[in-house]
Amino acid sequence: MADKSEKMKARLPRGFVDRGADDLRAVEKMMATIRSVFELYGFEPVDQPLIEYTDALGKFLPDQDRPNEGVFSFQDDDQWLSLRYDLTAPMARFVAENFERLPKPYRSYRSGWVFRNEKPGPGRFRQFMQFDADTVGTPGVAADAEMAMMMADVMEALGIKRGDYVVRVNNRKVLDGVLEAIGLGGDENIGRRLTVLRAIDKLDKLGVAGVRLLLGAGRKDESGDFTKGAGLDNTQVDVVISYFTVMAQHDPEKIVQTLGSINPGLSNLIEERKLEHLGITNASFVEGLAELEQIRTMVAQSGYGEDRIRIDPSVVRGLEYYTGPVYEAELLAEIPNEDGQIVRFGSVGGGGRYDGLVSRFRGEPVPATGFSIGVSRLMTALKNLGKLDTSDVIAPVVVLTMDKDTECLGRYQKMVAELRAAGIRSEMYLGGAGMKAQLKYADRRGSPVAIIQGGDERAKGEVQIKDLIEGAKMSAEIADNAEWRAARPAQVTVAESGLVAEVKKILAAQAEERARGK
Amino acid sequence: MADKSEKMKARLPRGFVDRGADDLRAVEKMMATIRSVFELYGFEPVDQPLIEYTDALGKFLPDQDRPNEGVFSFQDDDQWLSLRYDLTAPMARFVAENFERLPKPYRSYRSGWVFRNEKPGPGRFRQFMQFDADTVGTPGVAADAEMAMMMADVMEALGIKRGDYVVRVNNRKVLDGVLEAIGLGGDENIGRRLTVLRAIDKLDKLGVAGVRLLLGAGRKDESGDFTKGAGLDNTQVDVVISYFTVMAQHDPEKIVQTLGSINPGLSNLIEERKLEHLGITNASFVEGLAELEQIRTMVAQSGYGEDRIRIDPSVVRGLEYYTGPVYEAELLAEIPNEDGQIVRFGSVGGGGRYDGLVSRFRGEPVPATGFSIGVSRLMTALKNLGKLDTSDVIAPVVVLTMDKDTECLGRYQKMVAELRAAGIRSEMYLGGAGMKAQLKYADRRGSPVAIIQGGDERAKGEVQIKDLIEGAKMSAEIADNAEWRAARPAQVTVAESGLVAEVKKILAAQAEERARGK
Repeated sequence: MADKSEKMKARLPRGFVDRGADDLRAVEKMMATIRSVFELYGFEPVDQPLIEYTDALGKFLPDQDRPNEGVFSFQDDDQWLSLRYDLTAPMARFVAENFERLPKPYRSYRSGWVFRNEKPGPGRFRQFMQFDADTVGTPGVAADAEMAMMMADVMEALGIKRGDYVVRVNNRKVLDGVLEAIGLGGDENIGRRLTVLRAIDKLDKLGVAGVRLLLGAGRKDESGDFTKGAGLDNTQVDVVISYFTVMAQHDPEKIVQTLGSINPGLSNLIEERKLEHLGITNASFVEGLAELEQIRTMVAQSGYGEDRIRIDPSVVRGLEYYTGPVYEAELLAEIPNEDGQIVRFGSVGGGGRYDGLVSRFRGEPVPATGFSIGVSRLMTALKNLGKLDTSDVIAPVVVLTMDKDTECLGRYQKMVAELRAAGIRSEMYLGGAGMKAQLKYADRRGSPVAIIQGGDERAKGEVQIKDLIEGAKMSAEIADNAEWRAARPAQVTVAESGLVAEVKKILAAQAEERARGK
Repeated sequence: MADKSEKMKARLPRGFVDRGADDLRAVEKMMATIRSVFELYGFEPVDQPLIEYTDALGKFLPDQDRPNEGVFSFQDDDQWLSLRYDLTAPMARFVAENFERLPKPYRSYRSGWVFRNEKPGPGRFRQFMQFDADTVGTPGVAADAEMAMMMADVMEALGIKRGDYVVRVNNRKVLDGVLEAIGLGGDENIGRRLTVLRAIDKLDKLGVAGVRLLLGAGRKDESGDFTKGAGLDNTQVDVVISYFTVMAQHDPEKIVQTLGSINPGLSNLIEERKLEHLGITNASFVEGLAELEQIRTMVAQSGYGEDRIRIDPSVVRGLEYYTGPVYEAELLAEIPNEDGQIVRFGSVGGGGRYDGLVSRFRGEPVPATGFSIGVSRLMTALKNLGKLDTSDVIAPVVVLTMDKDTECLGRYQKMVAELRAAGIRSEMYLGGAGMKAQLKYADRRGSPVAIIQGGDERAKGEVQIKDLIEGAKMSAEIADNAEWRAARPAQVTVAESGLVAEVKKILAAQAEERARGK
């Protein structure tokens, strides 16, 4: 026995959480639904381990502010190993390694834990679960359109109504085109382009003022840490900020106004939504818009209107590896977030085309696209929307252990075995406490029924059966008519041989009452 | 695009594996069954993160031959973090941290990945999955008896017949008593006792000669690594080896013979199975045997005979934290193992009482017991026993993309959407290849049906539907009667509006044929 004075402290490292029964059951239910949609689309399950060679994962994390961080790594013999930070990089390794034997296109899905060695914060975890689907070997944007449609189908399969969600689609090529137009084109500016995109992606969090700093010289956060900026001059910052903040408003009039003020000649064209004439003519921008138009046509042909899938030039995804269309599923419903605040819930998943990720192992073009659902976030949303009811799980019947000698315990155990054989969730109380504490235990578990057999009952071959739901009501003195109470006394005594039948009767009555109460 | 010359190598670190669709589906099915048994017994799901403070996990791993190894660790600020090596240590931390709010006894189950930073080898992985159930706050062995019964119930729920498995139960106190009798009692010998137990636990792997070395001065393995032994003298080694090797034979006559040769006066007593008179009278041994007797009585009262749960004084579990009863579920069936050899499959899970694990956080006694199922091992066994048939999952119908313009793709996509709306797993071919390669793709996927619409069919508003199962049979020239062939041609052309109905008809015919073939 440990000495009190030298006992260990039981605590979790920051950024990690335990999950209880309700959450686990809700996640289980939700993932089964997602899985069924992915299967319906012809995707196959496959999964990769949580650890990979560090160099195989690559450095694609958004948080490059903290070099050498972002991932959990450890040295193994002469090599570095890392915990995966997403499911895409390991999948790319897997496909490259097994390329010859896999059907192409290769359509697969997987779920599992990923890790970020970041500064933990509210709602920001260092371990979280993703659920991904990917298609490797698909050059055309039909594959991207399919992904967007599948995301929409997942939302609806989970019970989220049309109008309560939208899948927004943009194209990294369009964004790159805008940046090229302000002089950030070319390979030599890859890093700066990414810094700009990541700064923009923080609009929600930091606001315009914060993002301006990140686009310019840099920004010092609350803790005093300084993040170096993209180094744009004021005019460049104005163009970028205007483009994105206005696009993010989804307000055509404001787009006209603001972009018009940058380049007055553009107003009319913008008004007609001819984005391709924004004054930007580089190939990336034009090609990107053409692809978006193709996606728009395809999803419309399949019956997905703008209420479900919307082309939205303001969408940015922070990961470096995207090369084409990107997409994001957003919940529009205003529901409590992880911290209980009522907000528009926002993104629950997203993805995009990453044509370089498999190629870097193969040395040949292997185009690919896919998306990732943030399991915990989506579950929080669904629970708050009342779409993940797990109240159908009934707590176990508890057989009290009034006497603790081997003979009696054996007899209690036999009752439990009979209940279980009848499919009734049940257990024998296994602690050391007395009757009162045992009933309190049954209450804490939310047990529907407690079984009691003391010496007297045993002598007569009987058992007492307590209806704990009805008992709680009676002790709370809830108004109840006399007939009903007579029909459902809170406690009955029956012959041991009648135990299972009587418990079944009580559970059925409780189920009926629950159904009525709904 | 990566240059061929500088492309990354796609490979997994040793000891880690990818898992394919069959395995994932089989595991899913198996875990759902295990879960339902745990739920029936009144256990609640809960789960802990994969990373904990290193000191909270403690050092209980068997492989202490390699100090500072065994776990994957990394430094976080001033603290060390580790990947969990089992599910029990994190659960103990969780219960201790949330002690006041949890019902006691606390009955919970969890599944997940655990990690061992060990030398990988055949069938020895550095990441594997466990599925655990634990009861915390239960002083009596009724809780251990329940665990043994639940393990037996899990085996049978998974379709393993009586006689094809057995749950063996022993008591760490009995083993400690034996070691005390040869002079290894007392706190000062904790380390040596453990070394002896772990050496014994390797009997299967190293044989008597190897274990003798580990009990004595030490042993050099194939790679030349030297493992220091327990330092017993020859007489001590004789007693230990005799006791355990003989017990492991489950052969009473051999027990009498061998133990008789160590202490001739004991033969009669041993013959009568009066193990308590083996000449060992210390409290640990006597108490341990009394507890085993209690467990034997309890499981017998609940109807679990020796064919299902057997007291077996030869069972050793290698983990340091066990303090009382230990148990192990063994598959007796002779089936192929992971390497394809036909062997008695052996252990698929086990556990025991660990009264000190929660206490070390609490500074007060918190008795607990639980077990762990080795998910991958059990799945391998079940697959080989034919208990995890996943052939009910039908591969997707493939709609070929004969023309790749946006208009045509939209039309193909619409067919797929209609099939999916009818609940038929299907996909549009999204690669860049021609018709022949597309049909080959459908074959590789195992698709039941391919849909083809070229320019001619499109003009007539028709689609071709290929029955790929029937087609494969015909091209293999399998004997088939003419009527059947007429009733099920390998290819039909129907109006586009009749697509779903026709595909349903073909799938139904295929299902019927599969059922007949079984």
